[in-house]
Amino acid sequence: MEIIVATKNQGKLREIRSALKGLQVHLHGLNDFQNVPEVDEDGKSFAENGLKKARFYSQFFGKLTIADDSGLEVDALGGTPGIYSARYAGIRASDQENRKKLLKELEGVPISRRGAGFKCVMAMVSPDGREALTEGSCRGRIGFKEVGKRGFGYDPIFILTRHGKTMAQLSLEEKNRISHRGKALRKLRKIITKFQAIFYDGCVTYER
Amino acid sequence: MEIIVATKNQGKLREIRSALKGLQVHLHGLNDFQNVPEVDEDGKSFAENGLKKARFYSQFFGKLTIADDSGLEVDALGGTPGIYSARYAGIRASDQENRKKLLKELEGVPISRRGAGFKCVMAMVSPDGREALTEGSCRGRIGFKEVGKRGFGYDPIFILTRHGKTMAQLSLEEKNRISHRGKALRKLRKIITKFQAIFYDGCVTYER
Repeated sequence: MEIIVATKNQGKLREIRSALKGLQVHLHGLNDFQNVPEVDEDGKSFAENGLKKARFYSQFFGKLTIADDSGLEVDALGGTPGIYSARYAGIRASDQENRKKLLKELEGVPISRRGAGFKCVMAMVSPDGREALTEGSCRGRIGFKEVGKRGFGYDPIFILTRHGKTMAQLSLEEKNRISHRGKALRKLRKIITKFQAIFYDGCVTYER
Repeated sequence: MEIIVATKNQGKLREIRSALKGLQVHLHGLNDFQNVPEVDEDGKSFAENGLKKARFYSQFFGKLTIADDSGLEVDALGGTPGIYSARYAGIRASDQENRKKLLKELEGVPISRRGAGFKCVMAMVSPDGREALTEGSCRGRIGFKEVGKRGFGYDPIFILTRHGKTMAQLSLEEKNRISHRGKALRKLRKIITKFQAIFYDGCVTYER
């Protein structure tokens, strides 16, 4: 079964591939195609943006499509950058520019008030219009400097309190085990498994 | 959700519509379209022919497709006409010509040796290649003359021993309750219901 993963972010695609490994699915990221239209992420929530992307590309490709929308909510900043996480420092900002801006906003804030959470929504939409949403979240603290080279986005400044490490210090497998995206993907994996199995339930077998 | 029903037989379509009533599906028979290619039913079993049709039209329309292949197996004739039931008296034979030929073949055979069974296979194939088969069968006897105006095919000469009526004397609802096709459709209905529900299993609800 083919599934479109509605993202051009290779970091997200890697995590999704890893979390869905072993399923009989063939995943295509948007970078596998040329001249793919963009979708305006103008929704008011992760769910709205994820659904918007999954709906659009499931119709565009005529295939089952999953889309991730995720972001970082910082307590001391009233939950921002939230849905604006990827464009916090500007519409085409790099991950590094976004992290730099966040560290600047939090200058002088002590570690006890640097709590934050990653949120992830995975939306899945079939060409015939059936829709699923799963979510995952993960608590931690924003550090004072970048640590670790793995992951992407805010990972190098997101400290997992219990592990004493940033998200960027984890291997792909470790990150998926505890991250917001990994949690949402485990729920999605169950739905895909049932979706694949359902046609064979209660069926007769024929010799041909 | 839209489903293609791969048949031009309005009698079959009526029974399928009735058996799937109440599901949130919109059924299209092949007569709803123009210039639809035909599929050669050259398989060696009901399942093979049903799958062949469902596979072809699911790709042709890009939609979930169900196809029925069914027939009558007469004990005294070694299980014929079987998969050739619709063309027993010739490639474009009418239902009446087929019944007439069968009654002629069974001339002189006493009621005790006129046992027969209807068989039905429903095949369902999704555009992404998932496949289901369900089956149903129904025992009876071949009468000596046509009785009843309902149904189609061999119904007027197929006597349901327990009911003392031919299949053509039953209302659509009664026929679906006991017929080969009705039984196969009840199993298919369960699969469609799960197929529709599965995306909502384990999902979170969002306020938008």
